[in-house]
Amino acid sequence: MKPIKSVCVVGAGAIGSLFAGHLGSQVSARVLVRRQEHEDRLNREGLKVSGKSDLQTPIQASMDPEQLGDVELIIIATKATAVEAAAQRLSGYFPDATVMTVQNGLGCEDVVAQYGDWPIISAITFMSGVRHSDVHVEYELDTETWLGPWAGRGASREMTQQVAELIKRSGLKAKAFDDVRPAQWSKLVFNSVVNSIGAATNLPHIKDFAKREKAADLGQLVFDMMDEGKRVAAAQGIELYQDPWEMNVKAVRHGQTGDDEYAHVFSMLDDVRSKRLTEVDWLTGAIVREANKLGIPAPIHEALYGLIKGIEHSWQQEDEGRRT
Amino acid sequence: MKPIKSVCVVGAGAIGSLFAGHLGSQVSARVLVRRQEHEDRLNREGLKVSGKSDLQTPIQASMDPEQLGDVELIIIATKATAVEAAAQRLSGYFPDATVMTVQNGLGCEDVVAQYGDWPIISAITFMSGVRHSDVHVEYELDTETWLGPWAGRGASREMTQQVAELIKRSGLKAKAFDDVRPAQWSKLVFNSVVNSIGAATNLPHIKDFAKREKAADLGQLVFDMMDEGKRVAAAQGIELYQDPWEMNVKAVRHGQTGDDEYAHVFSMLDDVRSKRLTEVDWLTGAIVREANKLGIPAPIHEALYGLIKGIEHSWQQEDEGRRT
Repeated sequence: MKPIKSVCVVGAGAIGSLFAGHLGSQVSARVLVRRQEHEDRLNREGLKVSGKSDLQTPIQASMDPEQLGDVELIIIATKATAVEAAAQRLSGYFPDATVMTVQNGLGCEDVVAQYGDWPIISAITFMSGVRHSDVHVEYELDTETWLGPWAGRGASREMTQQVAELIKRSGLKAKAFDDVRPAQWSKLVFNSVVNSIGAATNLPHIKDFAKREKAADLGQLVFDMMDEGKRVAAAQGIELYQDPWEMNVKAVRHGQTGDDEYAHVFSMLDDVRSKRLTEVDWLTGAIVREANKLGIPAPIHEALYGLIKGIEHSWQQEDEGRRT
Repeated sequence: MKPIKSVCVVGAGAIGSLFAGHLGSQVSARVLVRRQEHEDRLNREGLKVSGKSDLQTPIQASMDPEQLGDVELIIIATKATAVEAAAQRLSGYFPDATVMTVQNGLGCEDVVAQYGDWPIISAITFMSGVRHSDVHVEYELDTETWLGPWAGRGASREMTQQVAELIKRSGLKAKAFDDVRPAQWSKLVFNSVVNSIGAATNLPHIKDFAKREKAADLGQLVFDMMDEGKRVAAAQGIELYQDPWEMNVKAVRHGQTGDDEYAHVFSMLDDVRSKRLTEVDWLTGAIVREANKLGIPAPIHEALYGLIKGIEHSWQQEDEGRRT
């Protein structure tokens, strides 16, 4: 196993910038970008990390993967909807690299594996940041990133350990698992439910999500849908690392202020409000697919999946309407 | 059985005004109103019906039921959400009247029965109109009103026939059934599904509602949810008068223009957009209640019911926020 001397981040949003800005303090940090201005500014100014960290990191950026030389680790930190385009750009490059995917939901590793022979690390992250500009990211929630060899064509346990150690040395929090699926599925079930219900109701993560006194209370639907997701996980032999319902109760009770006025706006709701394609195919849709494969009923996931796809499709129709 | 010489309409929206404006050509038409201005204008100007009819009908209007004398027929044409308030106002008056309810969905007759001993006629209407002012309604879709003795404390078959004849004589279309539930449930299942899905997705009745080529197509969800509703109807021994899925396909294919741009905006979506309490308790919620009584699973209805109640509840929270 080669020691990691250089890392390439693809998708320098908040999460990607946090990785590049921190890892650059330990190894050579490179960023594959899509815009000339982004490339120029990163090469000239590097990446500033404020908030929970205070760093100024030199970055080697390019729009052309060939210009980035070889690296031992690639971190794909795009939204799930952009992973395929990212993997296409990497195809044919970085033959010695291991790829780590850090998306919400399930299925991005399969997409990456179609575009190259890289061993793959599955990661999920709980940290958060605010991207203030192309060259400045604020480190907000300093929570862990969990990683493990992908259950498909996974990286070795040693490589996974090395990546976790590198992340920790750079000032972020990480935890390596032999099998990350119990953690991945805990977050998957949680996110699949709260994101789709939030997007369909136009509600942020208010306390109603955990209220189940009457049959028509929203928390009852959240509970029943999580129960459905848990049954799909169980049928695959996955014992969840955390209970999604407890994650939900904890999140609404001990949120930043405990006040609904400041309730978290789920990324899917944010996407729907901005008419951006959501990650529903990797969240609710992923659970529907797994349930269908196993022959397990998942009617609530199917309903919410259909609703969100219906919402997305209505914008495409608007676009088509505009074009004609 | 007394001949019908006078009718009182409660809820002079589009449907209520169409009934009052037409029936007043045959019998004495009275309207129970809530606003002084409404009372004054109706008494002074009467009710003008344009569009498919051309009528100018004298009306006796009052905010006080006592002022309206006795009538043989009361038509409650409010939204389902306002039936209880309407029945409260009628309580203790009109001892010789039969009450006809004309709401979407299920359960309004039970509410009325709690406030008086009137025999009840269940009606559903397919006609539509546009209320231009307190004294002018436009008759748009000249489709039938279906009526039958309520399965609870129903009016006689003869009285129901007499009401149907009177409606027809007045220039509207009507059909009397011995058992109106097969028709009522056809419309209930149709409306419960398309209204809640439309409201949750912010979509009018576009062609996608009938498209089921791929698993994630919206029509698949519409189909599955209608199937669920049909099973609840079947378990009650009700043989549907029309197939809700065919009603759906026909509505999107042979709509007014066949163009999605002019697709029908469901009343529930209109309510959600205006942050008005919806009729979901009488539509999707009614099917959930019937399914629970019978011990039949209805997970898609439960999901959509929970979503719409969640949306409604979020406005109440906003209101509370504003008040404090």
